[in-house]
Amino acid sequence: MKILEERIRRDGTVLPGDVLKVDNFLNHQIDPQLMDELGAEFARYFEDAGVTKILTVESSGIAPAVMAGLHLKVPVIFARKHKSLTLTDNLYTAKVYSYTKRVTNDISIDRRFISTTDKVLIIDDFLANGQAVQGLLDITNAAQIPVAGVGVVIEKRFQKGHELVKAAGVPLVALASIAAFEDGQVVFSEN
Amino acid sequence: MKILEERIRRDGTVLPGDVLKVDNFLNHQIDPQLMDELGAEFARYFEDAGVTKILTVESSGIAPAVMAGLHLKVPVIFARKHKSLTLTDNLYTAKVYSYTKRVTNDISIDRRFISTTDKVLIIDDFLANGQAVQGLLDITNAAQIPVAGVGVVIEKRFQKGHELVKAAGVPLVALASIAAFEDGQVVFSEN
Repeated sequence: MKILEERIRRDGTVLPGDVLKVDNFLNHQIDPQLMDELGAEFARYFEDAGVTKILTVESSGIAPAVMAGLHLKVPVIFARKHKSLTLTDNLYTAKVYSYTKRVTNDISIDRRFISTTDKVLIIDDFLANGQAVQGLLDITNAAQIPVAGVGVVIEKRFQKGHELVKAAGVPLVALASIAAFEDGQVVFSEN
Repeated sequence: MKILEERIRRDGTVLPGDVLKVDNFLNHQIDPQLMDELGAEFARYFEDAGVTKILTVESSGIAPAVMAGLHLKVPVIFARKHKSLTLTDNLYTAKVYSYTKRVTNDISIDRRFISTTDKVLIIDDFLANGQAVQGLLDITNAAQIPVAGVGVVIEKRFQKGHELVKAAGVPLVALASIAAFEDGQVVFSEN
């Protein structure tokens, strides 16, 4: 997506360790107009996929997910992160390891909000090692809920999340796909 | 706001201890169309207030804040919650006590994203005891950043958050204002 790639080039910062910092428009300060355009783009990809609900994980996934929900006219559910859960009777849960924070969190979704008659679209801000998306796929698998696809704002294609989603047999849409970082610059994938 | 009051009556659940559960459209499952209407309503109240940035706190404030930002055409910044912060050089921070979770968290905003030339609108999903809003006001006070107002989706007017914002001399807009709970039913304020 052209405007997103241009925004990443203009406002993103490449840090050591293949880290792309985009906290001035995506995951700390948010540009609502851009989110709206990203949401419309996700909707174009998935408008015929029969999506009934969108799933994401707090907090950075919420803005793009809500805009996708606005354009697809479906509810959005954000999984909550917990240090560890004790009472899980009414919850679908999964464990998510964060490579950046080096901690494992539980994520949870209230069972009332998704059912086997749903078809969910998973949205997140970043796909790198894919642990958050894997956690949501663990939940949809365990609950036998059909998945229409995974949509991410930015993927680092050279990390393992991309292959992980493909291996799950789930359609993957990345609005910006980063092939590599070279000399502190972002190199986008061609496709 | 009529449609919000109707939605609260229809989908909200009043629990013991004056707790209103609205996790089916506001703070776990989100209704994006409703958020868009709430955002438009906040924008109508504050369109002439010279707002340059919106501040909120993760996670439940993000959806209404981003929609308000979309309609006011300004960036949104969500303060991050932390167990406790060690490095705070580049951050504005404040302490926020949660009555529901009975823990104190630090919240933080990167100093790069707000300045004394800004005029901020604070948005949150709920105003009850007002601790989250107070934390954001602590930050804007310490940083000497003008505040255009506080906008909340739902206030429990009988709890201390309402008076706290008024005492700070900041305009307060609550799209739904709850005067009391009576026999498990919501009683809205007339004003």
